[in-house]
Amino acid sequence: MTAADCVMCTRVAGEGPLFIADLPTSRVYFNEDQFFPGWVFVVLKRHAVELYELTASERAAQVEDVARVARALASVYQPVKMNYELLGNQVPHIHWHLVPRLAGDPEPRGPVWRVTHEPTVLPPNEVARRIGQIRAALA
Amino acid sequence: MTAADCVMCTRVAGEGPLFIADLPTSRVYFNEDQFFPGWVFVVLKRHAVELYELTASERAAQVEDVARVARALASVYQPVKMNYELLGNQVPHIHWHLVPRLAGDPEPRGPVWRVTHEPTVLPPNEVARRIGQIRAALA
Repeated sequence: MTAADCVMCTRVAGEGPLFIADLPTSRVYFNEDQFFPGWVFVVLKRHAVELYELTASERAAQVEDVARVARALASVYQPVKMNYELLGNQVPHIHWHLVPRLAGDPEPRGPVWRVTHEPTVLPPNEVARRIGQIRAALA
Repeated sequence: MTAADCVMCTRVAGEGPLFIADLPTSRVYFNEDQFFPGWVFVVLKRHAVELYELTASERAAQVEDVARVARALASVYQPVKMNYELLGNQVPHIHWHLVPRLAGDPEPRGPVWRVTHEPTVLPPNEVARRIGQIRAALA
């Protein structure tokens, strides 16, 4: 897969209303579905599929980005636990799902994927407010 | 939670039949359930809950361990895609689920957690053979 036909490459080339931040190796986006509040994506800026395809210094910088976003989300959402997932079964371009698991989570001891639900799409002003909080926590 | 009452702290203090390897920041164990072939755990040797609790140098070393195990699993199992998950909803001690997703996977585009199944427990000689292959690939 080249950059030209990868939807994550297209995504990191732009920003759009869900864009949160530009970090050294990644760009960060708010998940449109906020059924799990605070779910964001940390997307590697360059096209790579597996962690072991990166150089050690890229991996170190990437995990710094991931940890920095996780810390910011924890500060905003006060989760019981953060979840960090790098899957890529549908879009094989390194991107992390960071999901704060809050008190009152519908399945606190299980993965988010077991919770079938309708997407929760927030109104644009609420998306902007949440993105502002996450940006402030990242700063 | 202290080391004394954490099951992952207990686990990394020993080895047992599912032990694969000792790496700089982690110990690696074969998942008893091999319904998804090659599922292993990379467990941080010290007790910490979130990635952002580690120092930057610990994070860099931890992600090196994770990438090294993922590369070894890819070499042994030849997956379509590797999955990397740090959840901790049940056991809040940093441990990664590394899961090779093979051709013929029952849900190739979805997370493993959506596939309900009975555990596949391999006979001890097959566990030992697989662990030997992973160790050889790590060497």
